Amino acid sequence: MKILLVNPNMTQAMTDRLTEVARRAVAPGTEILPLTAPRGFPYISSRAEAQIAGAVALEMIAPHAKTVDAVVIAAFGDPGLDAARELFDLPVTGMAEASMLAACQLGRRFGVVTFAPWLKPWYHASVRDLGLEARFAGLRSAEDIDGPVTDVAANMRGILKTLAEKVAREDEADAVIFGGAPLAGLAAELALELPCVPIDPISAAVTQAEALVRLSPRGADRGAYARPPAKPSQGLDPTLAAWIARET
Amino acid sequence: MKILLVNPNMTQAMTDRLTEVARRAVAPGTEILPLTAPRGFPYISSRAEAQIAGAVALEMIAPHAKTVDAVVIAAFGDPGLDAARELFDLPVTGMAEASMLAACQLGRRFGVVTFAPWLKPWYHASVRDLGLEARFAGLRSAEDIDGPVTDVAANMRGILKTLAEKVAREDEADAVIFGGAPLAGLAAELALELPCVPIDPISAAVTQAEALVRLSPRGADRGAYARPPAKPSQGLDPTLAAWIARET
Amino acid sequence: MKILLVNPNMTQAMTDRLTEVARRAVAPGTEILPLTAPRGFPYISSRAEAQIAGAVALEMIAPHAKTVDAVVIAAFGDPGLDAARELFDLPVTGMAEASMLAACQLGRRFGVVTFAPWLKPWYHASVRDLGLEARFAGLRSAEDIDGPVTDVAANMRGILKTLAEKVAREDEADAVIFGGAPLAGLAAELALELPCVPIDPISAAVTQAEALVRLSPRGADRGAYARPPAKPSQGLDPTLAAWIARET
Amino acid sequence: MKILLVNPNMTQAMTDRLTEVARRAVAPGTEILPLTAPRGFPYISSRAEAQIAGAVALEMIAPHAKTVDAVVIAAFGDPGLDAARELFDLPVTGMAEASMLAACQLGRRFGVVTFAPWLKPWYHASVRDLGLEARFAGLRSAEDIDGPVTDVAANMRGILKTLAEKVAREDEADAVIFGGAPLAGLAAELALELPCVPIDPISAAVTQAEALVRLSPRGADRGAYARPPAKPSQGLDPTLAAWIARET
Amino acid sequence: MKILLVNPNMTQAMTDRLTEVARRAVAPGTEILPLTAPRGFPYISSRAEAQIAGAVALEMIAPHAKTVDAVVIAAFGDPGLDAARELFDLPVTGMAEASMLAACQLGRRFGVVTFAPWLKPWYHASVRDLGLEARFAGLRSAEDIDGPVTDVAANMRGILKTLAEKVAREDEADAVIFGGAPLAGLAAELALELPCVPIDPISAAVTQAEALVRLSPRGADRGAYARPPAKPSQGLDPTLAAWIARET
Amino acid sequence: MKILLVNPNMTQAMTDRLTEVARRAVAPGTEILPLTAPRGFPYISSRAEAQIAGAVALEMIAPHAKTVDAVVIAAFGDPGLDAARELFDLPVTGMAEASMLAACQLGRRFGVVTFAPWLKPWYHASVRDLGLEARFAGLRSAEDIDGPVTDVAANMRGILKTLAEKVAREDEADAVIFGGAPLAGLAAELALELPCVPIDPISAAVTQAEALVRLSPRGADRGAYARPPAKPSQGLDPTLAAWIARET
Repeated sequence: MKILLVNPNMTQAMTDRLTEVARRAVAPGTEILPLTAPRGFPYISSRAEAQIAGAVALEMIAPHAKTVDAVVIAAFGDPGLDAARELFDLPVTGMAEASMLAACQLGRRFGVVTFAPWLKPWYHASVRDLGLEARFAGLRSAEDIDGPVTDVAANMRGILKTLAEKVAREDEADAVIFGGAPLAGLAAELALELPCVPIDPISAAVTQAEALVRLSPRGADRGAYARPPAKPSQGLDPTLAAWIARET
Repeated sequence: MKILLVNPNMTQAMTDRLTEVARRAVAPGTEILPLTAPRGFPYISSRAEAQIAGAVALEMIAPHAKTVDAVVIAAFGDPGLDAARELFDLPVTGMAEASMLAACQLGRRFGVVTFAPWLKPWYHASVRDLGLEARFAGLRSAEDIDGPVTDVAANMRGILKTLAEKVAREDEADAVIFGGAPLAGLAAELALELPCVPIDPISAAVTQAEALVRLSPRGADRGAYARPPAKPSQGLDPTLAAWIARET
Repeated sequence: MKILLVNPNMTQAMTDRLTEVARRAVAPGTEILPLTAPRGFPYISSRAEAQIAGAVALEMIAPHAKTVDAVVIAAFGDPGLDAARELFDLPVTGMAEASMLAACQLGRRFGVVTFAPWLKPWYHASVRDLGLEARFAGLRSAEDIDGPVTDVAANMRGILKTLAEKVAREDEADAVIFGGAPLAGLAAELALELPCVPIDPISAAVTQAEALVRLSPRGADRGAYARPPAKPSQGLDPTLAAWIARET
Repeated sequence: MKILLVNPNMTQAMTDRLTEVARRAVAPGTEILPLTAPRGFPYISSRAEAQIAGAVALEMIAPHAKTVDAVVIAAFGDPGLDAARELFDLPVTGMAEASMLAACQLGRRFGVVTFAPWLKPWYHASVRDLGLEARFAGLRSAEDIDGPVTDVAANMRGILKTLAEKVAREDEADAVIFGGAPLAGLAAELALELPCVPIDPISAAVTQAEALVRLSPRGADRGAYARPPAKPSQGLDPTLAAWIARET
Repeated sequence: MKILLVNPNMTQAMTDRLTEVARRAVAPGTEILPLTAPRGFPYISSRAEAQIAGAVALEMIAPHAKTVDAVVIAAFGDPGLDAARELFDLPVTGMAEASMLAACQLGRRFGVVTFAPWLKPWYHASVRDLGLEARFAGLRSAEDIDGPVTDVAANMRGILKTLAEKVAREDEADAVIFGGAPLAGLAAELALELPCVPIDPISAAVTQAEALVRLSPRGADRGAYARPPAKPSQGLDPTLAAWIARET
Repeated sequence: MKILLVNPNMTQAMTDRLTEVARRAVAPGTEILPLTAPRGFPYISSRAEAQIAGAVALEMIAPHAKTVDAVVIAAFGDPGLDAARELFDLPVTGMAEASMLAACQLGRRFGVVTFAPWLKPWYHASVRDLGLEARFAGLRSAEDIDGPVTDVAANMRGILKTLAEKVAREDEADAVIFGGAPLAGLAAELALELPCVPIDPISAAVTQAEALVRLSPRGADRGAYARPPAKPSQGLDPTLAAWIARET
């Protein structure tokens, strides 16, 4: 099984880290094909950036849509997820959605921790879009730490551990998701130190992609995610434009 | 007051029609500045196309962000609405959202009618994103007409009248929204023939924009729609890139 | 355009203040006709008082129902709003509802601040009736101030600023509504000092009334707000009784 | 135990019928004290009428507030229920609310049947106010009968039986409430003929009042229904005005 | 009227206490028949234990199903409630559900207090199953007390009073339910000392059972709680097996 | 990886069929260990039976809890799922929950089809417990077929195909779940003939179990599913009793 791991950010080191964690999670025989965004932003952290990067993700998928079994959108917040499901006839998973669905099977309520406060409205939208508000305990970022926080980069591990404990104790989350591609792999590192079940989003996204491929060999080409009729366009990436025009 | 009417579709005739209806709705002294998309699709009709056109809408707003009082995204489904609110420090309204908010003041439950069935999942997303599921009665398109439908283009007016009656009688909607830019102005034409209150989305969008400007002279530059920190980018439209980098 | 501003409280000074703020908000050419309640309470502050004052509001509207374009119920909590929409064939807006709908276009989540704690259950009912629980961040009154509060009247401005900051920081509201007629105009005064978008309810109510009139020249005489069949009555205000009996 | 049965309608025959059915339902030793509205409408059937009749209900309760153990608002739609709970320190129940709460213990989903279509928006508000949308199957009135309906008065029993069957079979309601005071007693008559559990609202309202009195000897004078501070007024019924001013 | 009080716990002293409180609450002429679980656990305090004890409750009811008028499941969390309603043709009430429904008539929002933190997920499930999340303020246990708690058993009364005050003040609950069979009777004892309406679950469960019997002489044998078709089984309690096989 | 497939029904042929379909779905190296219920019912089809069979499921898991990596409860409706998650420190999945979570990634709305109408209230409870009402389109059984249905057993395939088409066309489901263990494998057979994405529950349950094992090597022993403290018991299956007493 071949899974295309689409990093809609332009940072290659992030793709490398995500790929490494993804490869540890998948079943024997599953191949991960990583891609880094050729244009856009070093690291998406707002809905405006996600609007643009979600369109870039479609450009990244188009050339591979006939040769892979599934696609993972490898950015928490899942930019372009609905659009990709509609456009391409194969399973597509997202880090936010997949980790929330996994969390629902490991606890009653899940929380999310991340580093920057401006990510909150964007990540809240993922919960809402999924329709899982009833299972959502809360979302915490570094600003929720009591007392002064110095040198965030150096203390990232400790800060996130503290936030995960807060989300478990104060928000009564049973499972905690480490939201944001830069935190890939942290859940496993902190597993033994937390009072709640830690969830790693890239691991969740690739294992959900595997589950969907095994479940649904034909992909998902009907209903809400049926491929739209052919449409002409101007000024778009040529491969994506050809795909949308149904010329490939 | 100057309102930028951003049509994220490439069809100039549609912009002309939207502008004409908008100008009839606004208060004395309100000026409408229409723009037609320079790239993208003739007419957006899927979430994939909205993902791309929403990014184009941002490119269209950027050069005018300092010279207008408000922006209207003139496509039902509101592509790029959240992103535009985040990026620009002025009120931004959308045709779907504005017509639903107006409908809530003219009836308990609102329905939406449109022509093409594949618009449904996209328009449903607008209801969900607004959080108004409890006020939503239903969404009907031409395929919901009983019996054969011949020559849709020629019979559009009759078809939409029948759908509006269905949404009123079967779905118990008190107000009905004519969803989709090509239907601009139809609500006024059918007003005397319907058992429910008809809502015209472009009129709703421009009058809501006026209301917000009168209410909030400073725009909306804080909270969930606070402008994100400066961000470098590659391969984007230069004016938009400069705006995102906070270089203008 | 003529808008009837119905203050269901008996305090003339409050009507004067509301009218002054309303006149600053409306478009050129919009006329505000203020009315103060001829019976009832100096200032409504409970659901029991709103039950009675809502009936008084209907008495106040009846003599003007054929000569104005829209009605604003000028008390937060919107006493008599549903009843007035049903009885009269023109747009009716309320301060609570209108400010919440405006807030939804200026932030993802809105909060409300007010002065007296016993207003809370009543104002909560407005959120619930509107169906916007998913957008509601919280409701704070003077009792939520940490530490002693002395001389509430003299310190009203400072107290409400502190409450608005709390609702923004602790409840994560993006927009804050200053609930209660006595707070009319405060939003504009505090606009530059707050970390969230301040909303003035009487300004929202009159600008929404304007938007509805421009949108829907026929008013709202069908569906859930269709005027009920003629009904005899005993012991009611004569003008209202004649209206309900459809004798005028 | 003394229960005040407040009929906010002016029709004495209706009060007599409600009292008769209520007396059959209560426990040995429970006394029913019926009251018919001294002013207002023969029969309330809209939210506008309920706004006024709810205020009349408060006038009716005030003279008895110290001498009965509980109050039943004997009109489906529960006019004045929240206001009465706030103002008086004893349990108050309503026909709509009580029958819905009883229905939740006899089925997963309940429906409501009634005669006139214009009652629907008012009765829907009862479901919403209670917060039981998740248990609500549907609301049907005579207009939902397929085929012509002739002589509604003569065929009331048959029409309501048909509607109850519809609500059970098509809306999947397990329990059906016969909404509207004129239908008092009908549930028992149809019990053996229906595929679902019939609920009689006045029986539900008086038995719930009994249950609350047995449960809570002190009434409900705190929290959301705490009695408001004393308030002066003008032009109100003198006994009610004295109660609100806390002069009795 | 005969009400079977089924304690699915094995502790006789608890049954005695519940029976005593129940007998104080019921109407003249209502007889309480108490039963203590013959197998299972001394005191159920988890969903795993409730899964097993709910099945035991069915065994306890079967021999009495034809000779009583109603059944009360006398454990907060209501183990086996849905199953019992389905299997037996008479009203069945539960302590959690009945107290929440009563609370909705005595306040807008209810909270629950209990002693052990591990009861929380189980009790939360009762709120969710009832569909009353919109009325639910919060759930507090001894771990929510600030500062050290010593000698829980000796200080139970004080701890629960403190928790009830917290749930009223911090969670804005108007009514508070003392959850858990061991707390039977405590609500009445604390009534005069609390800022909210205290609810006693066993009193609520028996008075709701009485109300349902008076309301619905035929029990509840249709719709979602229709008795399932006869079913053979192996290895079950013989009386229950015979009932399920419809051989009695 | 070893997955225990617990069939809480006593029918060996059903276990064999489920195992066969499960084995086709899992990754290379995943071993399925099937178990058939030693007591209980041939086929569970009500909540009363699920109450009992859920307790039997716990007895079946206990002897294997230390030697397998995950457990699948192989009955739609997921009897004992919450209890098993609480009691055992490893991932547990259920056919209803897993298929709904998979469906959410392959469509916006999912429906369920099954054969017997009395399964509906039980299956509805699965949607509600998961908190996915917002994604749920509808539930159809053989009684929803228009026109006479003869020889259900012989025509099962055709009936379910018709129901799936109804759920897609009338309820606007994008994905359809074939609910009930006897329908295992049918989704794959009908995949090419349906206008929506078919979901096979046992395939979903085993692939979700695999995903959770890969994600969370430590199982799920904290939060809402933390193992309860040791508890004595009487009259239970000895191995389960020992596990609950923490003696093994």
